[in-house]
Amino acid sequence: MDIDLPDVLAEVTAQFERYEQALVTNDVAVLDDLFRNDGRTLRYGIAENLYGYDEIMAFRAARSPVGLMRKIDRTMITTYGRDTAIASTLFYREAAPGRVGRQMQTWIRFPEGWRIVAAHVSIIDEPRA
Amino acid sequence: MDIDLPDVLAEVTAQFERYEQALVTNDVAVLDDLFRNDGRTLRYGIAENLYGYDEIMAFRAARSPVGLMRKIDRTMITTYGRDTAIASTLFYREAAPGRVGRQMQTWIRFPEGWRIVAAHVSIIDEPRA
Repeated sequence: MDIDLPDVLAEVTAQFERYEQALVTNDVAVLDDLFRNDGRTLRYGIAENLYGYDEIMAFRAARSPVGLMRKIDRTMITTYGRDTAIASTLFYREAAPGRVGRQMQTWIRFPEGWRIVAAHVSIIDEPRA
Repeated sequence: MDIDLPDVLAEVTAQFERYEQALVTNDVAVLDDLFRNDGRTLRYGIAENLYGYDEIMAFRAARSPVGLMRKIDRTMITTYGRDTAIASTLFYREAAPGRVGRQMQTWIRFPEGWRIVAAHVSIIDEPRA
Protein backbone atom coordinates (compact mmCIF):
# COMPACT_ATOMS: atom_id res chain seq x y z
CA MET A 1 0.00 0.00 0.00
CA ASP A 2 1.75 3.13 -1.26
CA ILE A 3 0.72 6.18 0.72
CA ASP A 4 0.91 9.70 -0.70
CA LEU A 5 2.42 8.87 -4.07
CA PRO A 6 3.27 12.37 -5.33
CA ASP A 7 1.41 12.15 -8.64
CA VAL A 8 -1.71 10.74 -7.01
CA LEU A 9 -1.62 13.34 -4.26
CA ALA A 10 -1.28 16.10 -6.85
CA GLU A 11 -4.29 14.82 -8.76
CA VAL A 12 -6.53 14.63 -5.72
CA THR A 13 -5.35 17.99 -4.41
CA ALA A 14 -6.33 19.59 -7.71
CA GLN A 15 -9.79 18.04 -7.51
CA PHE A 16 -10.19 19.06 -3.88
CA GLU A 17 -9.34 22.66 -4.78
CA ARG A 18 -11.78 22.54 -7.66
CA TYR A 19 -14.47 21.36 -5.27
CA GLU A 20 -13.70 24.10 -2.75
CA GLN A 21 -13.88 26.79 -5.40
CA ALA A 22 -17.19 25.38 -6.67
CA LEU A 23 -18.57 25.26 -3.14
CA VAL A 24 -17.92 28.88 -2.24
CA THR A 25 -19.22 30.09 -5.61
CA ASN A 26 -22.19 27.67 -5.52
CA ASP A 27 -21.20 26.15 -8.86
CA VAL A 28 -23.74 23.36 -8.60
CA ALA A 29 -22.76 21.73 -11.90
CA VAL A 30 -19.20 21.14 -10.71
CA LEU A 31 -20.33 19.99 -7.26
CA ASP A 32 -22.72 17.51 -8.84
CA ASP A 33 -20.02 16.33 -11.22
CA LEU A 34 -17.55 15.61 -8.42
CA PHE A 35 -19.90 13.36 -6.47
CA ARG A 36 -20.18 9.84 -7.84
CA ASN A 37 -23.48 9.29 -9.64
CA ASP A 38 -24.55 6.20 -7.75
CA GLY A 39 -27.20 5.17 -5.26
CA ARG A 40 -24.49 4.22 -2.75
CA THR A 41 -22.99 7.71 -2.60
CA LEU A 42 -23.60 9.11 0.86
CA ARG A 43 -23.44 12.63 2.30
CA TYR A 44 -24.02 13.44 5.96
CA GLY A 45 -24.49 17.21 5.92
CA ILE A 46 -24.67 19.93 8.54
CA ALA A 47 -28.37 19.29 9.18
CA GLU A 48 -29.36 16.48 6.81
CA ASN A 49 -28.48 12.92 5.84
CA LEU A 50 -28.51 12.31 2.10
CA TYR A 51 -28.59 8.80 0.65
CA GLY A 52 -27.62 8.43 -2.98
CA TYR A 53 -26.72 10.83 -5.74
CA ASP A 54 -30.29 11.97 -6.41
CA GLU A 55 -30.82 13.22 -2.85
CA ILE A 56 -27.47 15.03 -2.96
CA MET A 57 -28.33 16.71 -6.27
CA ALA A 58 -31.75 17.79 -4.95
CA PHE A 59 -30.11 19.30 -1.87
CA ARG A 60 -27.63 21.29 -3.96
CA ALA A 61 -30.35 22.58 -6.26
CA ALA A 62 -32.44 23.80 -3.31
CA ARG A 63 -29.60 25.31 -1.30
CA SER A 64 -29.41 29.06 -0.72
CA PRO A 65 -26.30 30.46 -2.40
CA VAL A 66 -25.94 33.06 0.37
CA GLY A 67 -23.17 32.85 2.96
CA LEU A 68 -21.19 29.95 1.53
CA MET A 69 -17.82 31.74 1.68
CA ARG A 70 -15.51 30.21 4.24
CA LYS A 71 -11.92 30.04 5.37
CA ILE A 72 -10.36 26.58 5.48
CA ASP A 73 -7.63 25.42 7.83
CA ARG A 74 -5.59 22.28 8.61
CA THR A 75 -6.50 20.66 5.31
CA MET A 76 -5.17 17.09 5.17
CA ILE A 77 -5.18 15.00 2.02
CA THR A 78 -3.84 11.46 2.19
CA THR A 79 -3.81 8.96 -0.66
CA TYR A 80 -3.77 5.17 -0.27
CA GLY A 81 -2.60 3.35 -3.36
CA ARG A 82 -3.53 4.92 -6.69
CA ASP A 83 -7.31 4.91 -6.41
CA THR A 84 -8.29 6.08 -2.91
CA ALA A 85 -7.89 9.34 -1.03
CA ILE A 86 -9.25 11.06 2.05
CA ALA A 87 -9.53 14.84 2.03
CA SER A 88 -10.33 16.52 5.32
CA THR A 89 -10.43 20.14 6.33
CA LEU A 90 -11.63 22.46 9.03
CA PHE A 91 -13.60 25.51 7.96
CA TYR A 92 -14.77 28.77 9.52
CA ARG A 93 -17.52 31.18 8.51
CA GLU A 94 -17.69 34.80 9.63
CA ALA A 95 -21.35 34.40 10.54
CA ALA A 96 -20.51 31.64 13.04
CA PRO A 97 -17.82 32.89 15.43
CA GLY A 98 -16.59 30.32 17.95
CA ARG A 99 -17.70 27.46 15.75
CA VAL A 100 -15.59 25.20 13.57
CA GLY A 101 -16.74 23.10 10.62
CA ARG A 102 -15.26 19.75 9.73
CA GLN A 103 -15.51 18.33 6.21
CA MET A 104 -14.27 14.84 5.39
CA GLN A 105 -14.50 13.25 1.95
CA THR A 106 -13.47 9.90 0.54
CA TRP A 107 -12.48 10.08 -3.11
CA ILE A 108 -12.20 7.06 -5.43
CA ARG A 109 -10.69 7.02 -8.91
CA PHE A 110 -13.12 5.68 -11.51
CA PRO A 111 -12.62 5.43 -15.29
CA GLU A 112 -14.33 8.84 -15.57
CA GLY A 113 -12.03 10.41 -12.95
CA TRP A 114 -11.84 11.07 -9.22
CA ARG A 115 -15.21 11.18 -7.52
CA ILE A 116 -16.44 11.63 -3.94
CA VAL A 117 -18.27 8.51 -2.74
CA ALA A 118 -18.81 9.55 0.87
CA ALA A 119 -18.76 12.89 2.66
CA HIS A 120 -19.51 14.09 6.16
CA VAL A 121 -19.82 17.74 7.16
CA SER A 122 -20.52 18.95 10.68
CA ILE A 123 -20.11 22.05 12.81
CA ILE A 124 -19.19 22.12 16.47
CA ASP A 125 -18.09 24.61 19.09
CA GLU A 126 -14.40 25.31 18.71
CA PRO A 127 -12.65 22.87 21.08
CA ARG A 128 -10.58 24.46 23.82
CA ALA A 129 -6.89 23.96 23.17
CA MET B 1 -13.23 -0.85 -9.87
CA ASP B 2 -15.20 -3.74 -8.37
CA ILE B 3 -17.75 -2.49 -5.88
CA ASP B 4 -19.08 -4.67 -3.06
CA LEU B 5 -17.22 -7.86 -3.87
CA PRO B 6 -18.94 -10.31 -1.53
CA ASP B 7 -15.81 -11.60 0.20
CA VAL B 8 -14.44 -8.11 0.76
CA LEU B 9 -17.78 -6.84 2.03
CA ALA B 10 -17.99 -9.77 4.45
CA GLU B 11 -14.53 -9.02 5.82
CA VAL B 12 -15.23 -5.36 6.41
CA THR B 13 -18.64 -6.03 7.88
CA ALA B 14 -17.06 -8.37 10.42
CA GLN B 15 -14.53 -5.71 11.40
CA PHE B 16 -17.23 -3.04 11.59
CA GLU B 17 -19.26 -5.25 13.95
CA ARG B 18 -16.17 -5.90 16.03
CA TYR B 19 -15.63 -2.16 16.31
CA GLU B 20 -19.25 -1.51 17.31
CA GLN B 21 -19.11 -4.16 20.02
CA ALA B 22 -15.85 -2.72 21.33
CA LEU B 23 -17.30 0.78 21.33
CA VAL B 24 -20.36 0.02 23.42
CA THR B 25 -18.33 -2.05 25.87
CA ASN B 26 -15.47 0.50 25.91
CA ASP B 27 -12.95 -2.17 24.91
CA VAL B 28 -10.18 0.37 24.36
CA ALA B 29 -7.62 -2.21 23.25
CA VAL B 30 -9.77 -3.31 20.31
CA LEU B 31 -10.69 0.27 19.41
CA ASP B 32 -7.03 1.24 19.40
CA ASP B 33 -6.15 -1.83 17.35
CA LEU B 34 -8.68 -1.01 14.64
CA PHE B 35 -7.40 2.49 14.02
CA ARG B 36 -4.28 2.67 11.87
CA ASN B 37 -1.19 3.46 13.93
CA ASP B 38 0.01 6.39 11.88
CA GLY B 39 0.39 10.13 12.23
CA ARG B 40 -1.95 10.66 9.26
CA THR B 41 -4.89 8.87 10.89
CA LEU B 42 -7.62 11.42 11.57
CA ARG B 43 -10.70 11.39 13.75
CA TYR B 44 -13.22 14.23 13.91
CA GLY B 45 -15.23 13.40 17.02
CA ILE B 46 -18.41 14.69 18.60
CA ALA B 47 -16.60 17.57 20.32
CA GLU B 48 -12.94 17.21 19.35
CA ASN B 49 -10.62 16.97 16.35
CA LEU B 50 -7.89 14.36 16.74
CA TYR B 51 -4.82 14.35 14.50
CA GLY B 52 -2.81 11.16 14.42
CA TYR B 53 -2.97 7.89 16.25
CA ASP B 54 -1.47 9.20 19.50
CA GLU B 55 -4.19 11.81 19.97
CA ILE B 56 -6.86 9.21 19.24
CA MET B 57 -5.38 6.76 21.77
CA ALA B 58 -5.17 9.49 24.42
CA PHE B 59 -8.82 10.37 23.85
CA ARG B 60 -9.92 6.74 24.23
CA ALA B 61 -7.92 6.30 27.40
CA ALA B 62 -9.47 9.41 28.98
CA ARG B 63 -13.05 8.78 27.89
CA SER B 64 -15.76 8.02 30.42
CA PRO B 65 -17.08 4.51 29.88
CA VAL B 66 -20.56 5.61 30.97
CA GLY B 67 -23.44 5.96 28.51
CA LEU B 68 -21.76 4.51 25.43
CA MET B 69 -24.59 2.07 24.62
CA ARG B 70 -26.43 3.02 21.45
CA LYS B 71 -28.81 1.76 18.82
CA ILE B 72 -27.55 1.89 15.25
CA ASP B 73 -29.67 2.35 12.13
CA ARG B 74 -29.27 2.60 8.34
CA THR B 75 -25.77 1.14 8.44
CA MET B 76 -24.20 1.26 4.97
CA ILE B 77 -20.96 -0.48 4.12
CA THR B 78 -19.62 -0.16 0.59
CA THR B 79 -16.33 -1.59 -0.66
CA TYR B 80 -14.31 -0.25 -3.60
CA GLY B 81 -11.85 -2.73 -5.02
CA ARG B 82 -10.26 -5.11 -2.53
CA ASP B 83 -8.56 -2.62 -0.21
CA THR B 84 -10.97 0.26 0.50
CA ALA B 85 -14.32 0.48 2.27
CA ILE B 86 -16.62 3.11 3.72
CA ALA B 87 -18.73 2.18 6.74
CA SER B 88 -21.43 4.65 7.76
CA THR B 89 -24.18 4.43 10.30
CA LEU B 90 -26.67 6.50 12.18
CA PHE B 91 -26.89 6.01 15.93
CA TYR B 92 -29.22 6.93 18.75
CA ARG B 93 -28.71 7.15 22.49
CA GLU B 94 -31.50 7.05 25.06
CA ALA B 95 -30.01 10.05 26.86
CA ALA B 96 -30.35 12.20 23.73
CA PRO B 97 -33.94 12.00 22.43
CA GLY B 98 -34.58 13.87 19.19
CA ARG B 99 -30.90 13.73 18.25
CA VAL B 100 -29.22 11.47 15.72
CA GLY B 101 -25.54 10.57 15.51
CA ARG B 102 -23.69 9.97 12.28
CA GLN B 103 -20.51 7.90 12.16
CA MET B 104 -18.51 7.55 8.96
CA GLN B 105 -15.27 5.56 8.69
CA THR B 106 -12.89 4.85 5.84
CA TRP B 107 -11.19 1.48 6.15
CA ILE B 108 -8.05 0.44 4.25
CA ARG B 109 -6.61 -3.06 4.04
CA PHE B 110 -2.95 -3.16 5.15
CA PRO B 111 -0.67 -6.20 5.48
CA GLU B 112 -1.72 -6.35 9.15
CA GLY B 113 -5.43 -6.23 8.30
CA TRP B 114 -8.27 -3.75 7.85
CA ARG B 115 -7.74 -0.47 9.68
CA ILE B 116 -9.64 2.81 10.00
CA VAL B 117 -7.62 5.69 8.56
CA ALA B 118 -10.24 8.41 8.87
CA ALA B 119 -13.41 8.77 10.93
CA HIS B 120 -15.94 11.49 11.53
CA VAL B 121 -18.61 11.38 14.22
CA SER B 122 -21.22 14.07 14.78
CA ILE B 123 -24.62 14.53 16.38
CA ILE B 124 -27.43 16.69 15.02
CA ASP B 125 -31.11 17.28 15.62
CA GLU B 126 -33.11 14.56 13.91
CA PRO B 127 -34.00 15.98 10.47
CA ARG B 128 -37.69 16.32 9.73
CA ALA B 129 -38.80 13.75 7.18
